[in-house]
Amino acid sequence: MTAATDNERTHVVAVLGRGVIDADLPVVTADDLGLTRGDGCFDSARVVTDPTGSAHVVDLDGHLTRLACSAAALAIASPPREDWQALVAEALACWSTPGEGTLKLVLTRGREWQSSGPTALVTLTHRGPERPTVAPGDSRPAPSITAVTLSSGLPADAFAGAPWLLGGVKTLAYAVNVAAVREARGRGADDAIFVTTDGYALEGTTSALLVARDGALLATPTGDTGILESVTVTSILSRAPGHGLTGRHELVPVADLFRAQGVWLVSSSRGPVQVTTLDGIALAHDGETAERVLRLAGF
Amino acid sequence: MTAATDNERTHVVAVLGRGVIDADLPVVTADDLGLTRGDGCFDSARVVTDPTGSAHVVDLDGHLTRLACSAAALAIASPPREDWQALVAEALACWSTPGEGTLKLVLTRGREWQSSGPTALVTLTHRGPERPTVAPGDSRPAPSITAVTLSSGLPADAFAGAPWLLGGVKTLAYAVNVAAVREARGRGADDAIFVTTDGYALEGTTSALLVARDGALLATPTGDTGILESVTVTSILSRAPGHGLTGRHELVPVADLFRAQGVWLVSSSRGPVQVTTLDGIALAHDGETAERVLRLAGF
Repeated sequence: MTAATDNERTHVVAVLGRGVIDADLPVVTADDLGLTRGDGCFDSARVVTDPTGSAHVVDLDGHLTRLACSAAALAIASPPREDWQALVAEALACWSTPGEGTLKLVLTRGREWQSSGPTALVTLTHRGPERPTVAPGDSRPAPSITAVTLSSGLPADAFAGAPWLLGGVKTLAYAVNVAAVREARGRGADDAIFVTTDGYALEGTTSALLVARDGALLATPTGDTGILESVTVTSILSRAPGHGLTGRHELVPVADLFRAQGVWLVSSSRGPVQVTTLDGIALAHDGETAERVLRLAGF
Repeated sequence: MTAATDNERTHVVAVLGRGVIDADLPVVTADDLGLTRGDGCFDSARVVTDPTGSAHVVDLDGHLTRLACSAAALAIASPPREDWQALVAEALACWSTPGEGTLKLVLTRGREWQSSGPTALVTLTHRGPERPTVAPGDSRPAPSITAVTLSSGLPADAFAGAPWLLGGVKTLAYAVNVAAVREARGRGADDAIFVTTDGYALEGTTSALLVARDGALLATPTGDTGILESVTVTSILSRAPGHGLTGRHELVPVADLFRAQGVWLVSSSRGPVQVTTLDGIALAHDGETAERVLRLAGF
């Protein structure tokens, strides 16, 4: 069956306790709390296949650590790291698709009607051909998007002392993020940047925010803001000093996005994607800084 | 197999397009957006089985209407009402368990990797023996719980003009509600009442709030508060005048809960459950009002 074959090449599903299964087969029951309550967490990482057909996950360790933090915040007993690593290896063994992919690690609290233990699964999804490296002087445009600002409904310190609000936890409960993308598309933009009721820019709907302002790279602080620590942004900030840039966590007023040298939405699988217009207003693009940011992120 | 037989009696699962299936069988794929993003909605209703073994759903119409509103807010094309009614009927046909049950209607956006259309399923879950009717002069205590107040992180008007925050939409993204129950239990209480940053009481974690104050029944307004319209509370308020009570939607300051004649958390399946202590402080209990509230809710 052609469809199934195509599907096997572009999607791989592996479930803890069952191994790799047909991606078209159901995997969770009707009472799985990840389905019925969004009661679980996930993490996403970039998968790169080299010309020999060998695939690897970029910074799997960092993503497994973040997943473990999310699970701990939800009081879900995540399987041991070795089990996740073995499950990822099983999935990768079925994966020789050229180009880039996304690994997703999904953990739910498990079944409600019987004590099954947590549900743990991984998926691999093809993302398209290998992304072109941006070389110095290269005229190929870096990936870019348009965005609008949308209120998060919250002040910047809403998550202080309120762990039940699950700030910094990558839960499966992403319905608001999906609705925000829908709102952005309805306004003719690609994505949204959440802003606080007291005027700060927070993050994208599935990505972290990075701003170049006054010669420094600024990322939204985690903690009281409820912002998730970004594996890629952390890597960019830590490597910045070696590349002639300073980087730090600092809340950026929304107004500053319009006078910045560059604004990026950053995710592990897509890397830094430059925002070209915000609320219909063109943002500055400094080619040299943009190139450095891509390199710092390993793209 | 005893376990399977037991399971069949206490849980029924019916999936649109598949009919009734073994409750232990998986129903959704790894890429179902309800699982991976909480991108879907649900509704819950009370199921009562009469002594002849015939089961019916209390106000199925009201719950189907609310589900349709949730689906519309998420831009998910819900199956026609007749399809839901037929699916519920299929599930009920397998259900003769004495006592009370909960019907859950679950709708997700469907699969991410291929256009499958939305996933629609219903579950029936046994809730225990028939609830005793509270008769006048009956000394059996009405159901009650203890609660703590937890911040919602938001002001009372946070959802005004921000439809992407999904106020009033019963999404599958309930991780914060689950975490709030966990926090409440950690503080020695049964449940939590969310309160706004500007000092108003909103709702429970899976229930609406009803307060008897100065001779009136008060329910949290929907709309800007993001509060879900409660099918049971709506019914209580509309029937109150015929039972010598007035009822209306009004924001109640948290402080007023401590001087009220009664505070209830109301859900369709459990009905009004009286809050006996809040943050460790005993709340008033007016027996006559409590009895009327139970009757108004049909319990």
